[in-house]
Amino acid sequence: MGLLDYFLSSRPKGSANVAKERLQILVAHDRATRDQPSYLPQLQQEILAVIRKYVDVDMSAVSVNYEQGDSHEILELNIILPDAVHHHQA
Amino acid sequence: MGLLDYFLSSRPKGSANVAKERLQILVAHDRATRDQPSYLPQLQQEILAVIRKYVDVDMSAVSVNYEQGDSHEILELNIILPDAVHHHQA
Repeated sequence: MGLLDYFLSSRPKGSANVAKERLQILVAHDRATRDQPSYLPQLQQEILAVIRKYVDVDMSAVSVNYEQGDSHEILELNIILPDAVHHHQA
Repeated sequence: MGLLDYFLSSRPKGSANVAKERLQILVAHDRATRDQPSYLPQLQQEILAVIRKYVDVDMSAVSVNYEQGDSHEILELNIILPDAVHHHQA
């Protein structure tokens, strides 16, 4: 699981108690063909809607990266969560 | 965007037409405190439900990794999509 290993190794370590509550979502789609329209932008909106059932997400705290190549597209969401997290009842 | 760069550099390149249709979802949660119960397992189920509105997902083609540490948890979904993708109407 190369991606997971990378993710773990890139975490900041040892900086006691400076951690910010943060949520990061990555959706990667390897496409064999490009003859279908992309559904990642809509998928992103629906995933965000799901996440907002669990945590308060200030839309200004969401940064989005979208990258498209010949046979892949990658959508990345970085969300800084508020310090006091209020959990919603789903 | 280190994660995005890594993701791109780890893609297989140049192996013409052997690409499998594949969807990969990574959800990482940096938690400042551990006094809240994790909502990632439920979130995973809801994200899968959303994805199944867009593509046919055979549940046997979904592999899940879940990793939990002191201040983070990471959920990874790897989905092999069927060769003939039938798009659902959401």
